[in-house]
Amino acid sequence: MPMPLADLVVLDLTHVLAGPFASMTFSDMGAKVIKVERPGSGDDTRAFPPFKDGKSAYFAAINHGKSSIALDLKADGDRAVFERLLSRADVLLENYRPGVMDRLGYGWDSLHAEHPHLIYGSVSGFGHTGPDAKRPAYDMVVQARGGVMSITGEDGREPVRVGASIGDIVAGMYLAQGVLAALFDRTRTGRGRRIDVSMLDSQLAILEHAVAITSVTGKAPGPTGARHPSIAPFETFHACDGLFVIAAGNDALFEKLCVALNLPLADDPRFATNPARCENVRLLKRLIEAVTLDHTRAHWIARLTAAGIPTGPIQSVDEVMKDPQILSRNMVVDVLDRNGRQAYKAAGNPIKMSDAEDRTSRAPAPDLDGNRGEILRWLDGACGGR
Amino acid sequence: MPMPLADLVVLDLTHVLAGPFASMTFSDMGAKVIKVERPGSGDDTRAFPPFKDGKSAYFAAINHGKSSIALDLKADGDRAVFERLLSRADVLLENYRPGVMDRLGYGWDSLHAEHPHLIYGSVSGFGHTGPDAKRPAYDMVVQARGGVMSITGEDGREPVRVGASIGDIVAGMYLAQGVLAALFDRTRTGRGRRIDVSMLDSQLAILEHAVAITSVTGKAPGPTGARHPSIAPFETFHACDGLFVIAAGNDALFEKLCVALNLPLADDPRFATNPARCENVRLLKRLIEAVTLDHTRAHWIARLTAAGIPTGPIQSVDEVMKDPQILSRNMVVDVLDRNGRQAYKAAGNPIKMSDAEDRTSRAPAPDLDGNRGEILRWLDGACGGR
Repeated sequence: MPMPLADLVVLDLTHVLAGPFASMTFSDMGAKVIKVERPGSGDDTRAFPPFKDGKSAYFAAINHGKSSIALDLKADGDRAVFERLLSRADVLLENYRPGVMDRLGYGWDSLHAEHPHLIYGSVSGFGHTGPDAKRPAYDMVVQARGGVMSITGEDGREPVRVGASIGDIVAGMYLAQGVLAALFDRTRTGRGRRIDVSMLDSQLAILEHAVAITSVTGKAPGPTGARHPSIAPFETFHACDGLFVIAAGNDALFEKLCVALNLPLADDPRFATNPARCENVRLLKRLIEAVTLDHTRAHWIARLTAAGIPTGPIQSVDEVMKDPQILSRNMVVDVLDRNGRQAYKAAGNPIKMSDAEDRTSRAPAPDLDGNRGEILRWLDGACGGR
Repeated sequence: MPMPLADLVVLDLTHVLAGPFASMTFSDMGAKVIKVERPGSGDDTRAFPPFKDGKSAYFAAINHGKSSIALDLKADGDRAVFERLLSRADVLLENYRPGVMDRLGYGWDSLHAEHPHLIYGSVSGFGHTGPDAKRPAYDMVVQARGGVMSITGEDGREPVRVGASIGDIVAGMYLAQGVLAALFDRTRTGRGRRIDVSMLDSQLAILEHAVAITSVTGKAPGPTGARHPSIAPFETFHACDGLFVIAAGNDALFEKLCVALNLPLADDPRFATNPARCENVRLLKRLIEAVTLDHTRAHWIARLTAAGIPTGPIQSVDEVMKDPQILSRNMVVDVLDRNGRQAYKAAGNPIKMSDAEDRTSRAPAPDLDGNRGEILRWLDGACGGR
């Protein structure tokens, strides 16, 4: 069977991270993604470090396998090309500041009237409605305003940012979900829909227990370092050579843990239930570490794994990229250069699907305007396509 | 127009967070989600704090709007009911340890042979293949092993956990994406696909710049507190009454920032370019804070916003839940109790879609087995449905 999104055409006006992350998902599942960039400099991330052979590995990590055409959407000739592309597209993605596409004459209302089948996906800092719709945002702004920083970090110290740009990424993932749902829906209605995803909204959507706690108690939780706020033991512990994680999520696992550590705590009323363990979590940590400090991380991870207890190392990103489980799942792929050589490593596609090829490499990220000729020929019908 | 996933039937065997988060997305977009729980205790999260009127607000936050039937998949009578449900389902979701569904006789191969249209979505700690497929995992284990903890926290201190369970949530989101793509694909092929998402894989997939940096330099980045690792100024700053964020992502924004703060740094060679600012990021922070400490957060956020500079507060979760922009986007919804009264608040649906009702409340989370009669009648055809 072909890839699940084969033959689908995505016209991608997005730049930086949230939108391009969404269109990467489409590309990874077989869609044809045409990246429309502004002439001159193109996507801002073309200038983001790190570089290899003068090209941004950051840009490549998110834009591999897409094609690029540079179009000035204020110039008549380029607008004509863009409009021909629109008539061939299933999906339009954009992440301009709200209002920009309308001023260009390419807002939802006009495009929906002209191309009723087109699915129109927007992602922006605060969404296309509400008092702050037109404010600019970056990942850091929505991580801060959206609450995730307030629950991340050490208790009593300043909040920290999540090291990955989840302000952008989660919004890009919601955009992809909305567009995919609209694609399914279109097979029944024949009509496209408009999807409007906000980075700020998307942060609230993943706050999970923090929203439930705040709703019921009226009090917002704070950060708890490396510890889960309401399960114990569920945190990092020191072995003699560094930190590792034990996640004993229920009483049965705690009993197994006590056996594996030879710690007679399972019947101790201070530790017999999860609420009691949470009450006495600092003492519990000291008692466990009095044992774990005697051996290495590797020793404890092997021993606890054999006992069926969720455990594992804290890996740096280079270690993750060599992790045998990660490699066995084809989660580190090669991004090729023009000559078909391996240029960079990038994350693979985490959506493993039956009868869909899980490629071990990716076509190069496009040069700015690097596919203009090919795209124009495709529009002329000389290359087949949709 | 009806909701984009109206009339779709999702048979949901998942429990705890990753799977139920995915099925919540389907429910929010109009699908009928039937939660199949084990008799007796049901989903583990029914016992997770916080509680209100004896019921878990955590469970309610993720399972509102679904219906529940308790089935013992090892008992003949219940298996017969489950198999009737299978013949009506579009999608099966499960997050058992790899091997469990096969032992029950409900693995992909047998179900695909019997129900070729069925889409079969699995999410697990490490995926259904590879050396560690059968190991248990919780969120904390994959946040640690998957690398995100290694880049989150303060430089020189121990790594911290992301305060929201993104190990589960991101995997649930990839599962939803994969299933949605397969639903679209099925409209062309008539055949279902199997989706296998791993929580560990999903962590690598969101590491973004950290993978690119490691790939090019061979060195993994470490944590950088509240600061972006490769953009400056892009971090938290102290005002006289607390912290706020400034995210000046490019030179033009930095120039505007210098004007707004009356700081003559834009032409200073130590700060004229982003690479130079990153070199001198500590000095830059001191110079900026020498100004920002003179006024309140509110003063600076208003002033910098007026100047077009991305900025904002660090909000606690209770503040986020009252944020006018969040409220204007219907991102805090009421979960109702049996009597139609507001019982809890929960996060709304961040996928805003044209012609799809964005409901301001959600039906209650189901009692365990609370919809058995209704589900059996629906199977008998007395209630219409698919």
